[in-house]
Amino acid sequence: MSFDVASVAAELQAALAPDRVSDTDANRTLHGHGESYHPTAPPDLVVWPVSIDEVVAVVTICGRHRAPIVPFGAGTSLEGQVCAIEGGVSVDLSRMNKILRVSVEDMDVTVEAGVTRLQLEQVLRPEGVFFPVDPGADATVGGMVSTGASGTTTVRYGAMRENVVSLTVVTAAGEVVRTRSRARKSSAGYDLTRLFVGAEGTLGIVVEATLKIHPTPEAMSAAVAAFPGLSEAVDCVVQTLQNGIPMARIELLDAVQLDAINRRYDLGYVAAPTLFLEFHGSPREVAEQAELVEEIARELGALTWASTSNATERNRLWEARHHAHEATLALRPGARTVVTDVCVPISRLQECIEATEVDLATSGLVAPLVGHVGDGNFHLALLVDPADPEEVGRAKELAETLARRAIALEGTCTGEHGVGYGKSKFLPLEHGEGGVRLMRAIKDAFDPDGIFNPGKLFAA
Amino acid sequence: MSFDVASVAAELQAALAPDRVSDTDANRTLHGHGESYHPTAPPDLVVWPVSIDEVVAVVTICGRHRAPIVPFGAGTSLEGQVCAIEGGVSVDLSRMNKILRVSVEDMDVTVEAGVTRLQLEQVLRPEGVFFPVDPGADATVGGMVSTGASGTTTVRYGAMRENVVSLTVVTAAGEVVRTRSRARKSSAGYDLTRLFVGAEGTLGIVVEATLKIHPTPEAMSAAVAAFPGLSEAVDCVVQTLQNGIPMARIELLDAVQLDAINRRYDLGYVAAPTLFLEFHGSPREVAEQAELVEEIARELGALTWASTSNATERNRLWEARHHAHEATLALRPGARTVVTDVCVPISRLQECIEATEVDLATSGLVAPLVGHVGDGNFHLALLVDPADPEEVGRAKELAETLARRAIALEGTCTGEHGVGYGKSKFLPLEHGEGGVRLMRAIKDAFDPDGIFNPGKLFAA
Repeated sequence: MSFDVASVAAELQAALAPDRVSDTDANRTLHGHGESYHPTAPPDLVVWPVSIDEVVAVVTICGRHRAPIVPFGAGTSLEGQVCAIEGGVSVDLSRMNKILRVSVEDMDVTVEAGVTRLQLEQVLRPEGVFFPVDPGADATVGGMVSTGASGTTTVRYGAMRENVVSLTVVTAAGEVVRTRSRARKSSAGYDLTRLFVGAEGTLGIVVEATLKIHPTPEAMSAAVAAFPGLSEAVDCVVQTLQNGIPMARIELLDAVQLDAINRRYDLGYVAAPTLFLEFHGSPREVAEQAELVEEIARELGALTWASTSNATERNRLWEARHHAHEATLALRPGARTVVTDVCVPISRLQECIEATEVDLATSGLVAPLVGHVGDGNFHLALLVDPADPEEVGRAKELAETLARRAIALEGTCTGEHGVGYGKSKFLPLEHGEGGVRLMRAIKDAFDPDGIFNPGKLFAA
Repeated sequence: MSFDVASVAAELQAALAPDRVSDTDANRTLHGHGESYHPTAPPDLVVWPVSIDEVVAVVTICGRHRAPIVPFGAGTSLEGQVCAIEGGVSVDLSRMNKILRVSVEDMDVTVEAGVTRLQLEQVLRPEGVFFPVDPGADATVGGMVSTGASGTTTVRYGAMRENVVSLTVVTAAGEVVRTRSRARKSSAGYDLTRLFVGAEGTLGIVVEATLKIHPTPEAMSAAVAAFPGLSEAVDCVVQTLQNGIPMARIELLDAVQLDAINRRYDLGYVAAPTLFLEFHGSPREVAEQAELVEEIARELGALTWASTSNATERNRLWEARHHAHEATLALRPGARTVVTDVCVPISRLQECIEATEVDLATSGLVAPLVGHVGDGNFHLALLVDPADPEEVGRAKELAETLARRAIALEGTCTGEHGVGYGKSKFLPLEHGEGGVRLMRAIKDAFDPDGIFNPGKLFAA
């Protein structure tokens, strides 16, 4: 799309404030990429609205000029969602970062879209409550909504989809819409809320969100168990879930990942497939859960089992998991990662991982594996030299093979990172042409001029 | 809409089988109403497809003739969803009742839309798993999906929205679409699954569903606690949830309801606001949870506390709750009920109930109160003589006042029964004109000729 950048800039400056509209190279570059290998695609302009009214003004101006609108939060997305591949205006929501209401009685919180995960955590902690979705990065709530984020605690507390009560969005017509009431459940018409979860800014701009919060568990404990092979580790997960043990976290790291962590942080973990576990509940519940899982792990031949209910030790134990990505990058200075994100029914997880390990061995690439295995979701971080197109190509090819395999195993090409523009080719395979036609029908109905994040989700 | 009934009947008979197409008064009447006060609105024809291909044929034939299509399950809906208010073809899915796959490893089950809740329960029980959504009636899975049903265990296990993994639907174009993979979570495009949950057959016909199942808890126990007033009972719920006690069920019945139950079943419950509770977990967890709630209840001045972990006693204890509706109807032989279904943030529940009690006293109507109070959802069963339009009118007026009050208290006019055609007037109030415009845009995009359940959800 081409539009008159100077006119749009002037109108935006008049509507917002001159210093909240920028066309500098620095700002454009900063807003042209997420945290992935996707090449930077800078927008023509960047704006920082501070209110819903200003977002409405931005949408109205851009709509009139047919200027693409690319919503931007913390820039931590992994599938190129914020790349302005058709140019346009990056709408940076980070200054809309007020926490509008915390209700412990209703177990919900209403925030502006630019509030970040850690900002929210700091406000909630003293109230004895927490928001459970933790994708790792300090993403904004608007970004987490728009990618349909999840993370290590999703096995127990659900993903964004399950933790968003309602949203306030600005539509292509410049209307402000509350998608739902604050009631915990509702059968009042179509579920607009969930439609915007994972829509990656293609249907409108999320400006506020009401989220479910949860009481901080009375007790938490952690454990780490190493296994002789991946299959025993995955079996441990399956049996734990089948026994109805309400795991708070159950994460798999492979031997390569453990080795990377040992090297980077000078630690002495056994370089073997390892589960990191966390238990939430009353002290008695937590102890009982840990005992049950230890029993399962030992029966499966676990090489080690270390557990603790001490908070400091628990955090230290989990540090290894939290720093997995840094440890991976340290394996090869200057490298970046192509991160895969498949998710399959747990009965197919073993098969999916095994076939992938074979691919990996043949590819000559190095890629630690980290998995939210309680959900059937795992990531390979394929290390590449971004300046080596052959290597990047090889990594993308492996990622594509894996995405196709996951879909063939009744799974998805993306469990939590979203589609962006790299994975749109898989949607017809995953949902059929009919499913994609329904999605396109929604897109066309909500955004007839195609101004919201063009080129994303759907293949050109 | 008018269409050539004889031609459509002939085409349907050719496509299905002559004996699975009916225009008899008996069949038409049977398919013209749910379990509510809404007057019977018979379809012109009833068909019983037995396969997805047959559903496609029905949709194609009806689409060509612009004949309205009204999906029908068990006929247990409460908001007139199955009333053929514009005539047309009732598509009875009850013969598509195969359970296609049970996977304990993946904790999911795939069923045809006509499978009923109790049929599913019987198949799952021996496997040590269960499907948690229990709206009371023996509804079909397709019906539960389409109304966005929930029930007594939703406080712990979620509503249909949280328990549907994916759906297979037949669209207006006669396409068969799987809305999502079998992965536990996905960020692959718009959430078509949730769009069909609660769509009341207005976007397409749900023909198959993949549902989450859960391990049967090792232990269950139940308790009943009577309180001096509604406010103490509601306080007990709020404090229980704030303490993070994972209640499996927490139901409120008011004094009128308890009195009705005592009369009908010759029982000796204290005729006072009463909570019925259920605990799920390991034996230790269940005991601990019950202790904690008992402590809260006693501090709030509970008049009685009776608990049991014996299965027979537990079932007897819960019988009172399960038979609440029969007990209500027995209060006045020949009466029917206008059932309200508001749901509000739990901090507003007290206020909402109190104001409603005042309305009720002034109205002269009798209406026991039953509530899924852990979700902020409660029902009044307003007893009316269906032949007395003045009384029915008075009940509907009270129900409307209550719906408007709930919306004003940041809640919804319907927590779980759906909109049907009686509540469509509240949608603009609840979602704003902008929200309803988005919903209509989806309807028009998915069903441009308006053949799917016309007159439902949206006001004419």
